[in-house]
Amino acid sequence: MSDFAKTKAMFHIPEDMIYLDGNSLGAMPWATAVKVERTITDEWGDMLITGWNKAGWMAKPTDIGDRIGRLIGAEKGSVVMGDTLSIKVYQAVASALEMNPGRKVVLSDNGNFPTDLYMADGLCKTMGADYEVRTVDPEAVEAALSEDIAVLMLTEIDYRTGRKHDMKALTEKAQALGIITIWDLAHSAGALPVDLAGCNADFAVGCTYKYLNSGPGGPAFIYVAPRHQDVARPALSGWLGHDAPFAFDLDYRPGAGIERMRVGTPPILQLAALEASMDIWDQVDIHDIRKASIALCEQFIAGVEESCPTLKLASPRNADDRGSQVSFAHPEGYAIMQAMIARNVIGDFRAPDIIRFGFTPLYIDEGDVDGAVSILKDVMENDLWDKPEYKIKSRVT
Amino acid sequence: MSDFAKTKAMFHIPEDMIYLDGNSLGAMPWATAVKVERTITDEWGDMLITGWNKAGWMAKPTDIGDRIGRLIGAEKGSVVMGDTLSIKVYQAVASALEMNPGRKVVLSDNGNFPTDLYMADGLCKTMGADYEVRTVDPEAVEAALSEDIAVLMLTEIDYRTGRKHDMKALTEKAQALGIITIWDLAHSAGALPVDLAGCNADFAVGCTYKYLNSGPGGPAFIYVAPRHQDVARPALSGWLGHDAPFAFDLDYRPGAGIERMRVGTPPILQLAALEASMDIWDQVDIHDIRKASIALCEQFIAGVEESCPTLKLASPRNADDRGSQVSFAHPEGYAIMQAMIARNVIGDFRAPDIIRFGFTPLYIDEGDVDGAVSILKDVMENDLWDKPEYKIKSRVT
Repeated sequence: MSDFAKTKAMFHIPEDMIYLDGNSLGAMPWATAVKVERTITDEWGDMLITGWNKAGWMAKPTDIGDRIGRLIGAEKGSVVMGDTLSIKVYQAVASALEMNPGRKVVLSDNGNFPTDLYMADGLCKTMGADYEVRTVDPEAVEAALSEDIAVLMLTEIDYRTGRKHDMKALTEKAQALGIITIWDLAHSAGALPVDLAGCNADFAVGCTYKYLNSGPGGPAFIYVAPRHQDVARPALSGWLGHDAPFAFDLDYRPGAGIERMRVGTPPILQLAALEASMDIWDQVDIHDIRKASIALCEQFIAGVEESCPTLKLASPRNADDRGSQVSFAHPEGYAIMQAMIARNVIGDFRAPDIIRFGFTPLYIDEGDVDGAVSILKDVMENDLWDKPEYKIKSRVT
Repeated sequence: MSDFAKTKAMFHIPEDMIYLDGNSLGAMPWATAVKVERTITDEWGDMLITGWNKAGWMAKPTDIGDRIGRLIGAEKGSVVMGDTLSIKVYQAVASALEMNPGRKVVLSDNGNFPTDLYMADGLCKTMGADYEVRTVDPEAVEAALSEDIAVLMLTEIDYRTGRKHDMKALTEKAQALGIITIWDLAHSAGALPVDLAGCNADFAVGCTYKYLNSGPGGPAFIYVAPRHQDVARPALSGWLGHDAPFAFDLDYRPGAGIERMRVGTPPILQLAALEASMDIWDQVDIHDIRKASIALCEQFIAGVEESCPTLKLASPRNADDRGSQVSFAHPEGYAIMQAMIARNVIGDFRAPDIIRFGFTPLYIDEGDVDGAVSILKDVMENDLWDKPEYKIKSRVT
């Protein structure tokens, strides 16, 4: 959208590349390198240990948490940065399970991103043989809610298909049965408006290296509803979540509010990179992003369906039921994506047969969509994917 | 030591500052900013998602792990980077407890860094009421070893006093009683030679932002002895520790060897900063560091004891029993350290009465020690610490 021409200029996209993988790793803001360089040279280099105070490093996890909170409808003081999404999932599930003693089941769906399931399963194994992660089809979640379930853990937007759960409705139904909810916003934060407070969400987690453009390995975030913050026991009880970290007490005493979800020393260089992209996000209305994202997705679907009849839409057709990505299924999906990448249109493949394209209006416009459609058409019409070298699965992401 | 004049030139120390806090946050190598800038611009910026393969990001946690492994006597393929030290402590304790079923006690000492105790305690609370963290005085550890103890978790070098545990002897005695050992090397890695393989260590963990100069919030490491690697269950079972992360299986299957101790997406920018400092460490023999460190510490102790009779040595007098720091006790320790900092000699204070000075031969030499002694003498002789503004405890680190 021409509305975003200004933000597009703030990002570096390699020449001649059409980058439709910002849902996996967001593009680099031009400002990032300078921001990080200053953090290294002017803060770490010159202030050394005093940077924790003088440069405000210690407060960055909550300061930036609030800036992300604006995009996901979180109350002020209810989001903190740190660790990875996997770790934040573990924290949330551990706290939620303890808040629901007597119940032993974590319910999720089999479209959830695997690490969420793995982390919950690892926790259940640690807690004992009577704890269980139960997965059902995404469409069967509502029917599977029952009073034996302690925690409902879902990713709002399916990483393969972009299918969107109804956060408000599922939260309400779950809570009516005494279930605590955890929402993974990995494919939501920066992709579409989220209203955690309005949904009465309990816990949420997410990452920042996708739509929020913090760079490879950028820190994750966790949200805890204000009503739970002083109740939730941090299972990962690290010193920076202590009420007085620098008293060096022998006993752990959880900090006030969201502070207790901090664990160890925050990654200041990655946080600086995140700040550079939040400087852009601060100027953007997430509702405008959503409007532009839907327009780009619709344009892409129409173009592909018209020109590539063998590709089957794997994402919901209705824009309201979809995140900010479009997926198509094809038995030769892997080779097709390799052929696209060879032509500098970057999306990705997800087993068994999904090709996935992310639309990030901050730096992707209609011209990019037209370009991608036309190259995909060429690849499909002329069987350009049908080469042995495109069929060797060597790519790790 | 003049032997290290070459490495000293590789670090930035602000003009007129004597930095004796490299045991808390190491100094900045000049090469770091350029290395990180290239990772941002040439790798993230230009390669985007393909950086995971093309720039070798995915292999960095083990590649760098091996480089650190050289400094701590670890077998190749037994160290991996990631997360924070707190998280790595949790991983190690969780695996170790499960490897010793039937025993429920984690033994540590009350000089251990609090986050180690907090994390183990948080894990024990999650595992059930019969699990326990037991702490004794550091000198009483050996006598407290018994057959009801599952795990002995110790920090080799005491963060307050620099007192050094005998890793080899304690490991041997613990193992003879069927106890699994975890060594925290936060104040050891890069400070003095460690011989994990020679000590027959089971698990070890450590951080990189102290002596290893990776910058604020640099990633931690975990070591698992080769004999345990395919036995240890990762309690934090994240997708990057999965045997085939990109198969996106619903069930977790731990990866081979040390790979299973990976959790989430590695922090590529912080790892790049660490690589810049490892480029220096690769050129250094840790035994030379130890020799230089002992000389600097002895020089400092002699100088302070001669000129500041009211300061009481809180570190072991025998160099072999000490890490790479020297601590003195004084009831007005906090104000004394503030007066030192005001004169640009940076050490730190640890409650209740310890002033602590770290000696890092990579960039600290005899001239720095002389300077620090002379300023400390001035502060003590002339009661320069006795000002109200030095007594307000506002510093967070």
